[in-house]
Amino acid sequence: MNIQEIIAKKRDRQELSKEEIEYFVTNYTNGTISDYQAAALTMAIYINGMTEEETTNLTLAMAHSGDILDLSEFGVVVDKHSTGGIGDKVTLILAPIIASLGIPVAKMSGRGLGYTGGTIDKLEAIPGYCTNITIEEFRKNVGEIGISLMGQTLNLAPADKKLYALRDTIAATESIPLISSSIMSKKIAAGANKIVLDVTCGSGAFMKDLSQAVKLAETMKKIGELAQKETVCVITSMEEPLGEAVGNSLEVVEAVQALQGNMAEDVREVVLTLGAYMMKLAGKGNDIEGNKQEMLTQIQNGKALKKLKELIQMQGGDISYIENVDLLSKAKYVMPVLATKHGYIRSLEAKSVGEISMHLGAGRERKEDAIDPAVGIVLKKKIGDYVEENEVLAYIHANNEEKGKEAVKLLEACYEIAEEKIEKKSCILKVL
Amino acid sequence: MNIQEIIAKKRDRQELSKEEIEYFVTNYTNGTISDYQAAALTMAIYINGMTEEETTNLTLAMAHSGDILDLSEFGVVVDKHSTGGIGDKVTLILAPIIASLGIPVAKMSGRGLGYTGGTIDKLEAIPGYCTNITIEEFRKNVGEIGISLMGQTLNLAPADKKLYALRDTIAATESIPLISSSIMSKKIAAGANKIVLDVTCGSGAFMKDLSQAVKLAETMKKIGELAQKETVCVITSMEEPLGEAVGNSLEVVEAVQALQGNMAEDVREVVLTLGAYMMKLAGKGNDIEGNKQEMLTQIQNGKALKKLKELIQMQGGDISYIENVDLLSKAKYVMPVLATKHGYIRSLEAKSVGEISMHLGAGRERKEDAIDPAVGIVLKKKIGDYVEENEVLAYIHANNEEKGKEAVKLLEACYEIAEEKIEKKSCILKVL
Repeated sequence: MNIQEIIAKKRDRQELSKEEIEYFVTNYTNGTISDYQAAALTMAIYINGMTEEETTNLTLAMAHSGDILDLSEFGVVVDKHSTGGIGDKVTLILAPIIASLGIPVAKMSGRGLGYTGGTIDKLEAIPGYCTNITIEEFRKNVGEIGISLMGQTLNLAPADKKLYALRDTIAATESIPLISSSIMSKKIAAGANKIVLDVTCGSGAFMKDLSQAVKLAETMKKIGELAQKETVCVITSMEEPLGEAVGNSLEVVEAVQALQGNMAEDVREVVLTLGAYMMKLAGKGNDIEGNKQEMLTQIQNGKALKKLKELIQMQGGDISYIENVDLLSKAKYVMPVLATKHGYIRSLEAKSVGEISMHLGAGRERKEDAIDPAVGIVLKKKIGDYVEENEVLAYIHANNEEKGKEAVKLLEACYEIAEEKIEKKSCILKVL
Repeated sequence: MNIQEIIAKKRDRQELSKEEIEYFVTNYTNGTISDYQAAALTMAIYINGMTEEETTNLTLAMAHSGDILDLSEFGVVVDKHSTGGIGDKVTLILAPIIASLGIPVAKMSGRGLGYTGGTIDKLEAIPGYCTNITIEEFRKNVGEIGISLMGQTLNLAPADKKLYALRDTIAATESIPLISSSIMSKKIAAGANKIVLDVTCGSGAFMKDLSQAVKLAETMKKIGELAQKETVCVITSMEEPLGEAVGNSLEVVEAVQALQGNMAEDVREVVLTLGAYMMKLAGKGNDIEGNKQEMLTQIQNGKALKKLKELIQMQGGDISYIENVDLLSKAKYVMPVLATKHGYIRSLEAKSVGEISMHLGAGRERKEDAIDPAVGIVLKKKIGDYVEENEVLAYIHANNEEKGKEAVKLLEACYEIAEEKIEKKSCILKVL
């Protein structure tokens, strides 16, 4: 077997065997196969595609290219993952609710690359919270309080890490077999038995339209089936940002308020739907609407917020910042964005809001960039809302006056306001 | 403009602009674009193809990526190139004939990589012949005696050199836009005004069937037209080796004998056809059959052989080896290959004969390998010939007894002998 033959097969639209895919992944990880050979194969995969079996074999080979976290001591562990969006603070709200129901949450999360920080960046906005704990502490925490959220310290799926970085430089990102194997390999390596995926769809997501998102979801569901990791996909809209806040501290504040019972309608839909399927996969009941009610009860009785505080305290964070979110670091300038006319918000493109937020310092353009936890955007009006002329649409939180002023202008231009009434739509597009 | 956008366009089957192709070639040559990005683009070109305009722009950009040899002082220079074959000693015979007709021959040739040596390797089988002269000597020689054949000392088409080496490692060799732009860029950089191409076709060539060879020829002809370098393509058969000898000294001997009037029929056809079109492009007459007669006259009157000796003497070679070819270095073992039965030779696969010859030491597997000028094969029987049982089919010339014995067995197996009479076919398949 050699890499030229493998490239030639995929180039000529033939199906690669399990052995050929494993040969590629092993030898690319150890450096025997060069980046240029991997680039040629990746482009051939992008153009000619992969069958479900090939995609599953690629997923499993990448999952097994490094450490595999064994979480079997906790029984069934249901992992949750999102393909990425703007204003997505769902994990911060959902994980404590699930843990408060007695379902173990043992989750390794990534940092964000792109418009906003990842869950790990958001948690680090809480003073003292340590994302960099050992695996032993991680296990101990899950054992004692049923939840731990940490950064990726293990060498999980190094093949995926290499291929992911390569894909970015050779215009090979938006490929369903490559995206799905990347996501699923990391989930499998991180020890998940069952997986609930939030497949985002719209301007702020990888998948721009529903048919593509459905194809991606079907592929990941099939990989899950073939790899014996039961998977549910919830396709959610990412036309506008999720919830009100975009930015790290601002999203922590929104998450705490959500656990206090004050949750934006779109966040509520996404949190409850994903959670209800997590409960189902964990064997806590097949009645999705009943599951949602149980989750709401955990918010109303304060147990979910209590679980968040336990988590933060256990990982060294200062819970006084949660008890009084006004203590969290604040931006120097808070500037209102005003409506230039009255009417209904017709569109508010998630991607553009993400770019403004990144420019303020809330996201990373490059891996090595530092994040400013204080800056970001709070959206007071969303699609379908009515607004009077000069009413506040949003607030820009900036630490640099010039950047703030620029962001105000840019965000103002993002709001499209129309005379006709616009119906608010559900952001749950499909479950499969 | 950036390389990701260029890759994405070709990936999505869009046509690249002249500026985009130039951007790629310039920045790949200077190292700004990495090998893995070039590999991804090359694979996208392989799979999705290129228009004639794109291929011409790629050719010109690669031709201008390094030095361009200016031969305008010699008027119209007609270059000749073969896409490669086994036993191809055509340049050694053709160049002196053409020069003896007063048409300047100023040719830079390459070393061989693969089954046999290139023209430069064959010339170096003549003691003293210096292929590594300066450009000033090269010009002086062409000025004084109308001919010079040297190695590639200039930095000709470095982009092609880089891309050619890359293609080999990523299974992207057999692509018509990539092969044609590679060949034509080198010819243009080497100063040709007009070009006659020998496009080989069959088991011993890049192009395995006539339709592919015609497609390649049409593409190169079109590039020539768009680049204002008039080009004629002669498609020749490479099912069996060309002529009798395969190996460096052995081919020099065959070339000298040809110039003495003793030429194998297939060699004669190829030499006369290519030469007649070279004469036509040089403005020496449009009557192809008449041109062939003129060439034969130059052999009969001894002027072509005289020109070869002048060339060799001018470049430091010892012409006593040409006057008496028995002086040329000889292999230790000369072993006959005998027919196991009587009948007509039905097939003699060029590729297999080439592999045997390379294994004897006549060709290079890797660039850094040394060539043994003495070894090789002399074929006494070719397709269509009748042979008695135990009659000599060929001779193996070896410097290692074991390798020689092995080659005898392998070559014996290459000869397919049948009862029915097989017609000899012309090896000129098409001219366009």
